[in-house]
Amino acid sequence: MREDILSLGKRARRAAHRMGLADGTVKGDVLARMADGLRAGQSLIAEANEKDLAQASERGLSGAKLDRLRIGGKVLDEMIAGLREVAVLPDPVGEITRMWLRPNGLRVGRMRIPLGVIGIIYESRPNVTVDAAALCIKAGNGVILRGGSEAFHSNVCLASILRRCLGEAGLPEDVVQLVGTTDRAAVLDLLKLEEYIDVMIPRGGEELIRFVCDNARMPVLKHYKGVCHVYVDELADLDMAERICLNSKVQRPGTCNAMETLLVHEAVAGAFLPRMAESFRAEGVELRGCPETRRLVPDCREAVEEDWAAEYLDYILAVRVVGSMEEAMEHMATYGSQHTEAIVTRDFKRAHRFIREVQSSLVLVNASTRFNDGFQLGLGAEIGISTSRLHAFGPMGLEELTTTKFIAFGDGQLRS
Amino acid sequence: MREDILSLGKRARRAAHRMGLADGTVKGDVLARMADGLRAGQSLIAEANEKDLAQASERGLSGAKLDRLRIGGKVLDEMIAGLREVAVLPDPVGEITRMWLRPNGLRVGRMRIPLGVIGIIYESRPNVTVDAAALCIKAGNGVILRGGSEAFHSNVCLASILRRCLGEAGLPEDVVQLVGTTDRAAVLDLLKLEEYIDVMIPRGGEELIRFVCDNARMPVLKHYKGVCHVYVDELADLDMAERICLNSKVQRPGTCNAMETLLVHEAVAGAFLPRMAESFRAEGVELRGCPETRRLVPDCREAVEEDWAAEYLDYILAVRVVGSMEEAMEHMATYGSQHTEAIVTRDFKRAHRFIREVQSSLVLVNASTRFNDGFQLGLGAEIGISTSRLHAFGPMGLEELTTTKFIAFGDGQLRS
Repeated sequence: MREDILSLGKRARRAAHRMGLADGTVKGDVLARMADGLRAGQSLIAEANEKDLAQASERGLSGAKLDRLRIGGKVLDEMIAGLREVAVLPDPVGEITRMWLRPNGLRVGRMRIPLGVIGIIYESRPNVTVDAAALCIKAGNGVILRGGSEAFHSNVCLASILRRCLGEAGLPEDVVQLVGTTDRAAVLDLLKLEEYIDVMIPRGGEELIRFVCDNARMPVLKHYKGVCHVYVDELADLDMAERICLNSKVQRPGTCNAMETLLVHEAVAGAFLPRMAESFRAEGVELRGCPETRRLVPDCREAVEEDWAAEYLDYILAVRVVGSMEEAMEHMATYGSQHTEAIVTRDFKRAHRFIREVQSSLVLVNASTRFNDGFQLGLGAEIGISTSRLHAFGPMGLEELTTTKFIAFGDGQLRS
Repeated sequence: MREDILSLGKRARRAAHRMGLADGTVKGDVLARMADGLRAGQSLIAEANEKDLAQASERGLSGAKLDRLRIGGKVLDEMIAGLREVAVLPDPVGEITRMWLRPNGLRVGRMRIPLGVIGIIYESRPNVTVDAAALCIKAGNGVILRGGSEAFHSNVCLASILRRCLGEAGLPEDVVQLVGTTDRAAVLDLLKLEEYIDVMIPRGGEELIRFVCDNARMPVLKHYKGVCHVYVDELADLDMAERICLNSKVQRPGTCNAMETLLVHEAVAGAFLPRMAESFRAEGVELRGCPETRRLVPDCREAVEEDWAAEYLDYILAVRVVGSMEEAMEHMATYGSQHTEAIVTRDFKRAHRFIREVQSSLVLVNASTRFNDGFQLGLGAEIGISTSRLHAFGPMGLEELTTTKFIAFGDGQLRS
């Protein structure tokens, strides 16, 4: 174990303890101060970012990757706006979520408290440094950040501004710590700090997430992928279905909540698929269909077994005609990733049953899969989406960065 | 990977899916049927248990260990009563815990669903086979049980009765599966089934729990130990304090929620400790004290550093005099295990602050630490106590065997 990583953990634990006791006003103030700090540090940030960009283009990074790395004016504005938004969200800590009376007079309740120390391991986008730190602080936690090596200078600069603001607000600077090395071995050591880090949240590609899961000794909150479905029921409003499918697929195809497979009831396939295919064609979406789909949409390419489980993240869509809602739900359970599934129907009973029986992190009736997002669902913020079921399932906001302890008020109760 | 263990996981996943859709009446009925089944199978159970007991005494197991293994009439009665109690608890599945309206008209909510498949690895007591299965079933989960090798015949017999009852109720028998071998390598394989087991709950000694944590690829819900404190404040009712301390220590010293360290404010130490020591002496409790304690209680043995972190689980108690509540809280944070801490005080402000600032799974004012228990706190049942913070912190009842998914009702909402 590297001494510097171990020390990082120990300092985080101490700082998190103090952070957990800070009241809502203090937390709101420090986040607003950070927003001001980023604005004031604009030119320092640009300078550090330039260093990263120069090194990245030397290493031959492509346009899209360079873009993700760049902290342009708009990205900085968004980071600052994000801090201000989180600053004014309600404080989750200290909320008593429930309270009840026991027959012996003991009053028992559950009170929301911070998780403790949160580790975040992420890839290129340096805005995660600010966004993730803001949420962790608002929920009273300490945070250890480990960004991608290509964004190292940007992250160091951003973190040092955040730390200075913590200090100025009378809070421990160690509430936010950045792993000060791009050494890969340091990540492995970080993943062994189960005594000092309560949960690890990896954000990035599937490879990074698998690496964290395979090596972390603390719990991990993660999502691997989104193979999301829309099922167009026999009793669907076909105009609405077309709009929902189009929005689910093309509004932003590269995101985890974009539709990857369309399932259509055989009774409406003839009326629906040809017009839907035309709309998709106009948007440049390539279809890969089952035999029945190809009969109805002659220029559609044949779907092979892998297509049903594919997360294209692109202008490609798998399409299958099914005989019933049951068959659609079975297809989702077999090939899906329990991320997001929607039904389009006018039938109350089917909607009712779909909501109950589909066990994905978000189940929708008559709305776009693109709503699986903390902001869109009204959580106010999002630190990621969990597709594992423990602790959090679906988008994670401030509440998911807390836990609850039991509290009990007595007047001398004993156990007999 | 052993084929039989892999097949166990696959069958559990399929069975859990069907179990998750069973409604509350069906679940209540099957648990009541199991209670009848155990009663009817009484002699078969006794026979299987005798085999285990005979083998255990051949291997030279001691009295207490043999006792834990024995399914006497009272133990069977308790298992049956437990099944009937869980049968009539409210169904946690399907509960909509919250619902809100978004500005675009989307109605968003959270609905409680089963966790999926739960693995339980436990040591000698065969009653865990029945108790744990009952809770997992009531929460709509599948369960894979791996009991101690010394209770193998008993566990096989109990599990086969439970499985038969599932089948008779029209549910898949594979909702309950017992690892059909005492082979240690099978446990390692089980711990690799992260695709089929959503959470692993080890129940037993610290060695077992460490082994599970070190090797499990799925999340683990666990508690290592309980180093529980009572702090007797300067403004305590000393009579009440004496009763609470006595109850916390001696009502059942071998449990994780028994007091292991007593902290006393210096202003009342002189009035409190000598009489408290006398009560403890009468109950056969050995005290190990700080210098000030030893000045006040001359026959008290000296506490060494290890005593402050010790979980005695015995008639031994560490005692320390502190200068303030802050010092007491710091002692708890330094040496405790975040399990259970109590304050005895008449002062509102101190109680208020203690409740807010002590971050243990149960924080009590004026009541015994022995209340940290699912039944005592009113959860209706308990599958264990978690001292890790993710997902559950403190006693885990039916709710902790579920998660929530997001649900959303729209009338054509799109994301823009």
